[in-house]
Amino acid sequence: MQKEAVRDAAKLPSIRSLVRAVDFEGRSLHSINDLTNDQIYALFELARALEPFHRSSVDLLRGSVMVTLFFQPSTRTRMSFETAMHRLGGAVVTEANPLVSSSAAKEESLADTMRTISKYANVIVLRHPDDVAAREGASYAEAPVINGGWGDWEHPTQALLDLYTLWRTHGSVEGAKVVVATPDMVHARTGHSMAYGLARLGAEVTLASRKDYRAPEEIIEGLRKVEGARVREVFDLDQDGFNDLISEVDLVYLPGCSAPKGEAAEEFKKMMDEYYVRLETLEKVRESEGRIIRVTHTLPRRPGEMDLRIDDTPHQQYFEAIAYSVAIRMALVAAIVGA
Amino acid sequence: MQKEAVRDAAKLPSIRSLVRAVDFEGRSLHSINDLTNDQIYALFELARALEPFHRSSVDLLRGSVMVTLFFQPSTRTRMSFETAMHRLGGAVVTEANPLVSSSAAKEESLADTMRTISKYANVIVLRHPDDVAAREGASYAEAPVINGGWGDWEHPTQALLDLYTLWRTHGSVEGAKVVVATPDMVHARTGHSMAYGLARLGAEVTLASRKDYRAPEEIIEGLRKVEGARVREVFDLDQDGFNDLISEVDLVYLPGCSAPKGEAAEEFKKMMDEYYVRLETLEKVRESEGRIIRVTHTLPRRPGEMDLRIDDTPHQQYFEAIAYSVAIRMALVAAIVGA
Amino acid sequence: MQKEAVRDAAKLPSIRSLVRAVDFEGRSLHSINDLTNDQIYALFELARALEPFHRSSVDLLRGSVMVTLFFQPSTRTRMSFETAMHRLGGAVVTEANPLVSSSAAKEESLADTMRTISKYANVIVLRHPDDVAAREGASYAEAPVINGGWGDWEHPTQALLDLYTLWRTHGSVEGAKVVVATPDMVHARTGHSMAYGLARLGAEVTLASRKDYRAPEEIIEGLRKVEGARVREVFDLDQDGFNDLISEVDLVYLPGCSAPKGEAAEEFKKMMDEYYVRLETLEKVRESEGRIIRVTHTLPRRPGEMDLRIDDTPHQQYFEAIAYSVAIRMALVAAIVGA
Repeated sequence: MQKEAVRDAAKLPSIRSLVRAVDFEGRSLHSINDLTNDQIYALFELARALEPFHRSSVDLLRGSVMVTLFFQPSTRTRMSFETAMHRLGGAVVTEANPLVSSSAAKEESLADTMRTISKYANVIVLRHPDDVAAREGASYAEAPVINGGWGDWEHPTQALLDLYTLWRTHGSVEGAKVVVATPDMVHARTGHSMAYGLARLGAEVTLASRKDYRAPEEIIEGLRKVEGARVREVFDLDQDGFNDLISEVDLVYLPGCSAPKGEAAEEFKKMMDEYYVRLETLEKVRESEGRIIRVTHTLPRRPGEMDLRIDDTPHQQYFEAIAYSVAIRMALVAAIVGA
Repeated sequence: MQKEAVRDAAKLPSIRSLVRAVDFEGRSLHSINDLTNDQIYALFELARALEPFHRSSVDLLRGSVMVTLFFQPSTRTRMSFETAMHRLGGAVVTEANPLVSSSAAKEESLADTMRTISKYANVIVLRHPDDVAAREGASYAEAPVINGGWGDWEHPTQALLDLYTLWRTHGSVEGAKVVVATPDMVHARTGHSMAYGLARLGAEVTLASRKDYRAPEEIIEGLRKVEGARVREVFDLDQDGFNDLISEVDLVYLPGCSAPKGEAAEEFKKMMDEYYVRLETLEKVRESEGRIIRVTHTLPRRPGEMDLRIDDTPHQQYFEAIAYSVAIRMALVAAIVGA
Repeated sequence: MQKEAVRDAAKLPSIRSLVRAVDFEGRSLHSINDLTNDQIYALFELARALEPFHRSSVDLLRGSVMVTLFFQPSTRTRMSFETAMHRLGGAVVTEANPLVSSSAAKEESLADTMRTISKYANVIVLRHPDDVAAREGASYAEAPVINGGWGDWEHPTQALLDLYTLWRTHGSVEGAKVVVATPDMVHARTGHSMAYGLARLGAEVTLASRKDYRAPEEIIEGLRKVEGARVREVFDLDQDGFNDLISEVDLVYLPGCSAPKGEAAEEFKKMMDEYYVRLETLEKVRESEGRIIRVTHTLPRRPGEMDLRIDDTPHQQYFEAIAYSVAIRMALVAAIVGA
């Protein structure tokens, strides 16, 4: 342990120069599009340099404070950010139940909350059910704000970690064939951020959804503006069509979206059936072509969306993604706070 | 960053002597009156020395643990204390929902909770809806307890930070003209602590409220005993009277109090109207006399109590106060834990 | 403080060798029986060496992260573990309201939660109302999992701290006469773990309960297999019988169990009456024999189970136990994470 500490300290200057190379200090991340392609790749390089420390720590942000403010439930995003901050030597102040335990319970405006918290924090991670309110509120913060999932709009750090995982496991994002599949692309904030990221880094992207639940016009419009983007939409596939589609790709990307409650739940379940990922489909390609189709899912809810036996096969990439999430979030936080 | 660390370490001995000068190690803060005037000014000096570290950190309390135990909602107080502890290099254990997640849900007495927690903590910050229970419970703790807002009685650290902000922005508390204004002075725990602090440090204080909601006898009695205190009460002002009153002061202090729900809400709103702070009143004085009347509000709820356009004027002092809150709470915690 | 740091650093090598002597790195603690007797005693030795640091800290686990995941209310267990981690120089990520604020609110399986969290944590402390689910879920974790109270089955670290307290105050566990007394031994997870620990370390154990609520067959079966165990059960004592019984022991151990609500509450209260610990019983023995019978209670709820005047007598051992809990949990966490 002590020897490691000496060895690790020797690596600090080169890590610090990778941090500076991202050139994002003091900036906020509302949309994946707040990062240039160069900045995304600089984050990937930094994350790779930080991977050896993702189960121990590197002393880059001693004395810095992250505030996590989550107006919606979360395990992965909040804990992964908090772990990342600790692995960088920083500290965390948490508000995970603002409607119960904070001044939001006393009807404070989000603007005032953000103004307040930004006096304490070096960086804020915010999750909020209403993306318009979140964007408006974040504009009042004097500290950088990271979007930790805003309404149905975007979830850029989930996309960043999935892009990074693809880059690490497939070798590159450019040229990778990816299907982003969900019946309901309207409410798939992760899918929106991921589609942008994939398109901009040169992947071949297929967005598969129901036509009446296709991605919002704002997202489609944004994707059209990406230079050289290779994006297509396919609608209303049946199970055979879906199987054919995923047989041709490198990565099947299942963006979680909140299942509706009550009456709509039954219809949602039926919609999901068409997009159910069968282990047999993956195995057939593996046997005939020797090619591994990777599957990732943003979790938490998987039953009914994919065969859980995939967990124990080389097709599984969702648990890998969680491990990579700490390194890429360490990179992002270090770049924003400045090390 | 590394150069700063070297430079900062050189400042540690002088900061440690400022900590010792407060002479409050191991003591609890239930009331603002637990501090002498000398101790308050020593805290101010220490806070000013700590200000340069309120966005980074100074390594004074490494290995010390603060427990924050909040039986009522809070953003500012809890987060500000937790940030202060991290900026001092210490650690925090949080219980922000004790009625849901702790043994309080299992009907433990507050005395036993305090006895227990004081075995873990070097310092405890307690918020509680019942000040009699809080005082009684705190007496069982073996570690120092800081009142983070107890019932309708006192909120001494809110007053400390507002006094410190006044000292920093106005230059002195002595001789400052301050109105503490709220229709309901019964339930204004912050107003009680602030009135004591202002009176004791030699400010000219006016308490403006409705007569049937004037400050409790215990508080008035306490204020009468302050040597040389310049405190007066004014009751039942109409909007013109209120405007006249605030036109003469250096600081308008609006102590938050919990708005009642249900039927009483409407009456409360009507009461508030008489004490509404108009931007025009402030601007008129500024134009005619060149004098800036500062307004502070303990937040969170401001709409209906003041013109929100004040936010973007030099009259606004509530957001400044939040920044100063970290430095003064760092000072208090360092003085109590001992650095 | 600085001199202490130098002196403490000099102790690190010997502490590290005590950590290694436990020989439990990377292991999980589901049952007290996951530890050998040698390992329990090695933890005791390590805890005693760590006691001087339980109000300050020792820099053993810098950069390591503990995740506390509590699906049931807790003050003592969670806060004591979190304090222990901070005193070791490590960091903590907390989820104390998973049904409100985490993905469990989104119907994630415990297996997936554990798989996820174990990518972040160096060690996980889990409390769960269903011990079968907890054992199953914990098996999916890639990081060591400590049982922080699972259903009605076991609560091994509560037993460890009570055994350690007995060892420290009585001088040895071997030969100590202990009664574990509760009308309802079915739901007394702490009693189960403690009975195992006492029996294995050579105490003379009496389990006193109602016959229709005796300890589950699994526990009795397990106790029978302990070599040389001196365990007996006694049932359905009246208050005189109970007084006679506790008059003969060194320690009266009252394992908390959740009082039922509703109709069953009244019957439970009546059951409790027979096992009520009277101060007079303890004083009579003290006066006639000069012998101090110690009483411990796992808290939180004590009224109705014992005379609260015991708090201020030398018979009281429950508050001592809380102080010792930090040292023994520091030892356990250091041994598991590896220092």
